[in-house]
Parts: sequence; structure tokens; C-alpha cells
Amino acid sequence: MPKPPTTTPTRVLMPDLPEFRAITAEGTESAYYRADFLPEGEFEGLVAWGMPKKLRSQVLLHPGLKWVLTLTAGIDGWPEMLPPGVTLYNAHELHDEAVAQHAAATLLAAGRGLIRFAQAGSWERPGQLWTLKGRNVVVWGYGHIGRIFSDLLAPFGAQITGLRSSSTPQEIQAALSTADDVVLLLPLTDATKQIVNAGVLASLKSGAWLYNLGRGELVDTAALVSALDNGHLGGAVLDVTDPEPLPEGHPLWGRGNVLITPHIASTTQDMQQRAADYAEAVLGQLARGEEPKNKVELGKGY
Amino acid sequence: MPKPPTTTPTRVLMPDLPEFRAITAEGTESAYYRADFLPEGEFEGLVAWGMPKKLRSQVLLHPGLKWVLTLTAGIDGWPEMLPPGVTLYNAHELHDEAVAQHAAATLLAAGRGLIRFAQAGSWERPGQLWTLKGRNVVVWGYGHIGRIFSDLLAPFGAQITGLRSSSTPQEIQAALSTADDVVLLLPLTDATKQIVNAGVLASLKSGAWLYNLGRGELVDTAALVSALDNGHLGGAVLDVTDPEPLPEGHPLWGRGNVLITPHIASTTQDMQQRAADYAEAVLGQLARGEEPKNKVELGKGY
Repeated sequence: MPKPPTTTPTRVLMPDLPEFRAITAEGTESAYYRADFLPEGEFEGLVAWGMPKKLRSQVLLHPGLKWVLTLTAGIDGWPEMLPPGVTLYNAHELHDEAVAQHAAATLLAAGRGLIRFAQAGSWERPGQLWTLKGRNVVVWGYGHIGRIFSDLLAPFGAQITGLRSSSTPQEIQAALSTADDVVLLLPLTDATKQIVNAGVLASLKSGAWLYNLGRGELVDTAALVSALDNGHLGGAVLDVTDPEPLPEGHPLWGRGNVLITPHIASTTQDMQQRAADYAEAVLGQLARGEEPKNKVELGKGY
Repeated sequence: MPKPPTTTPTRVLMPDLPEFRAITAEGTESAYYRADFLPEGEFEGLVAWGMPKKLRSQVLLHPGLKWVLTLTAGIDGWPEMLPPGVTLYNAHELHDEAVAQHAAATLLAAGRGLIRFAQAGSWERPGQLWTLKGRNVVVWGYGHIGRIFSDLLAPFGAQITGLRSSSTPQEIQAALSTADDVVLLLPLTDATKQIVNAGVLASLKSGAWLYNLGRGELVDTAALVSALDNGHLGGAVLDVTDPEPLPEGHPLWGRGNVLITPHIASTTQDMQQRAADYAEAVLGQLARGEEPKNKVELGKGY
């Protein structure tokens, strides 16, 4: 049975943006931060949205903080910063659907030659074109996004294999060696840093495509450039890069078989509104004494 | 009850390509044409694949022709050329799936900004990005391809409205005025030529996108350029153009919100093989006395 509503208002710090100022949550008293301004006093909760690290540190100096809601899909560096006893919530639902649709968009774009055609500027004969029917698609990091992505791609006839942290090296090797498309949705941890190295790239089928929608550091960039230069890799789609942003003149730019998007897989024009709506829902849950569902298990690393 | 197999071999004229030479169909004797070569004798059937009009006329001079299988999605000018009593079959299944996937690819590419990102060559901030969730997508010409396309898009959360030849002007107007994306899959007939004119473009919601995967002449190209120039149209994706091929220097080239693909919506790398497989299946049906399903109703115009 839910607890009765609390009567003392909870003071919550939120971003000073119109969408967040419009939030009305019973039992909540809001204060607003900007990149260069932090209100006085104590806060029981913090809703973090594009918050610089320096400002985070200042907020965390305030005693009395009980919880942080980071409106990101991941945990974005918070666990190392949080004082003991502070609960962290994230908001992966806010991002999952867009990232899954973005991933589907890029696999289709690769198959239908849209990268080259967008660059061409003239009526050219196409190279190899394919649909997703019968493609072996490996989703490396098969969590919330991976499952939505699979549901989106199944009607196209793609054969999807999900690799989880419980997958054995043999399972991983078997999946990668037969993959037409490898989609990285892994979180970045010590275990996954540069997990896609020269050896992994060489173990892929010739002509396979790599899609990185996780974090840039999952991939050894130099090895990726080599695998593209020697033609072993069919192509790559990178929403995240290492280094990021990818500097001008980097050898990954200007290729007909490489599409780089500036870390926008989860971005939509209504995202700030959706983020505020999400925060409002969480505030409502907390006010009603309910536990929001995306409590981050600290120590798991993602 | 199917007729018993015929015993006299049927002479069929086919393209001189390895995939078609590999066809073995019981009761069929094959002869092969090239763009510059037509074998002697009579043919009961013709399998047409990329056949120049001049060669068609020569084939049609041979008496004894009973049927033509054109491996195209449409009818491609055959009805006007066929002597009376010759049956025409087409092969829309061969193309429908690829065109539907291509259409889905381009709607997603537009939403995720992939046209601009592919052209950019540097790490840029995105403009407006969206997913297909909640988009009002109008499919103008709702036949085989339209239905597959709808099934592919439904899991993305798109709201799809199909316009058929039976749709009233009021229904068309209502659908167009609320559409975020208008996808043209109409056949080209006297009634559909330049159906998307300046008036139709002006009646669209500001920022709507137009996708032409039907025929170039469905759209008044000058009106399209105007609607892009004045910013009313959000963007356009054209797999077919008028004129086609679109000449270099045409004002539709070089825009961040226009993607032009060279009439390849149905192209896949295994298409010639799939076409031969399709022809083989039809030859088998005919040899068994079965009626192939894609008999074209001559006079309907598509």
C-alpha cells in the first residue's frame, strides 16, 4: 500500500528552463539552477539536465540531498561523485525509443546507399544495395534499447542476435563471425573499453558494417580506420567517437561508407519537454511515497 | 483441379544472363535475347527484363506469342504495344518489399537528420530531429507496397493514412493538410500526372516532407523547387524525378533537406537472381497449367 502523501514540501532543484518551470508537483517546492547560478539553501532532490560537472560538485556540497534524478540514459559520471546514502535515478525510457529508431534508421540508410547518395550531388549508378531481409544483425549490449530495436527490425526480416554481459566468448565470437551488421549498444566500463579492437574487427565477415551508438571509447579508432582503409569493413556508422567531438580533418571524415552523427541518437525536437514530463512524473511518484523505477544500482558501473 | 502437365515443350524467350540461363523449367524450351540479338523462330512466352522498346517491337512481330512476363513492378509501356489476345503478367512482389523498406529508410533518414549529417563532413550541431512516433504519414497510392510500408512503420508509432483511387477529394485534402510526411506511391496515369502541383504543395502543413517513390511526373518539379525555396516544404526525398535522370546543376541538387536517389528504391544486389527465381516459378506454374497470379488487367492503366 502506498504511503499517504507527505505534508512537508520537498525542496527540489531543477534546471531553469521554461519546460521545468511549468512543472507542478504536489508537495514539491522548486528552486532553479543555471550553469552560472545556484540558489541558496538545502535541497532534498536534484533534477539534473545538462549540468556541468563543476556545478554538480557545488550542489553536492549542500547537506540534506537525498536523491538525484539524472535525465540521461546512462549514469553519466554521477556514482563517483555522490555522497553515501544519496539515491540515483536515471531516465533511460526517455532515450530508449529514439536511440532504437536512430539505430534502425542508420542500418536502413547503409543498406539503401543513402550515405553515398546524400553526398553525391549528381545522378550516379548505385553500388551494392540491400534491404534488411535476411541480414544477420548482432546487437552487442542487449538491454532496453536493444529489445526495442529488435522489435522494430523484425518486420524487415532481419535476423537479430543479442549479446549480453552473460554471453560467453564463444557465443560472442560465433555471432560476430557471421554478422552482416554489428550494433554497439554497450555501456562504457573498464571491461568494455576498446572492446572493438583490431582483432575483433578482423574476426568480422568481410564487408560487415559496424554501428556505434554506445560510447566512442568502445572502439579502437585507429583499428577502425585501418579496417576501413584495407576494405575489410563494409562501412561504419558512428553516433559517438573517440575523440569526441571528432576533430575536422580526422581520417574518419569524408568517406562514402562512413556516416558520423554528432551524438544525437536520442535527440528529438521535443526532448526538453519530454524530459520535463518525465521529471514531473518522478516527482509525483516520490510525493506519493512510491519508488521511481529507474533506481541505479551503484557499483554495477552502468 | 489443375490441368495435367503439357507434353509439348513451350518455347520461351528469356534474357541472355547467367541467372536466367540457369533456369530449368519442365516443359519449357528456352531461347535467349540480348539487346542486339533475337533468336529465330516463334515463342509462346517472353520474359522481359530491361528490354529496350525497339527489341520489344521486334519480338511482338513474331506470331504465336501468348504471354509476356515483365519483371517490373508496373506495366512499363507494354499494354500499348501488345497485340490482342496476348496476356501480360508483371512481378510486383519482386519489388514491393524493397520499395517499402526503401521508403521506410528515407522517412527515418529525414527524421534523424542523416541527409545533412552525411553531407556535413564535420561535427555540427543538429537542427530539428524527430522519430516517427506520432508522425502523420500519408501514403498516396495505397496498394501492395503501401500496405507493406504501413506494417513496417506501425511499430515506430507512425499514424498512417492510405489514400486510394476511391478516396474522395475531401478525404485527400483532409489527409494532406494534417500530414507530416506525404509518400507518393501512385502509378503514373493521365489522372495522376503532376498531381502534386503548386496548389497541393501549398495545402500541406508548413514543414511537411514529400517522398516520391512512384514516378517523377507525379510532381510538378518547378512547383517543388518553389516550395523548397520559400521554406514551406520541410524537405523532399526523390527516388524518381522529372526530368530523369536529374541533370547536373539542377536546382534540386545540393540541398541539405533534399535527398535524391537514382531510381533504385527496388534495387538490391541480388535482384537479378531474384528476378530469375521469380521467372522460374512462373514458368513452373504455366507448365502445370496454373494461372500465375499477377495477370495485368489491360485497360486499367496500371
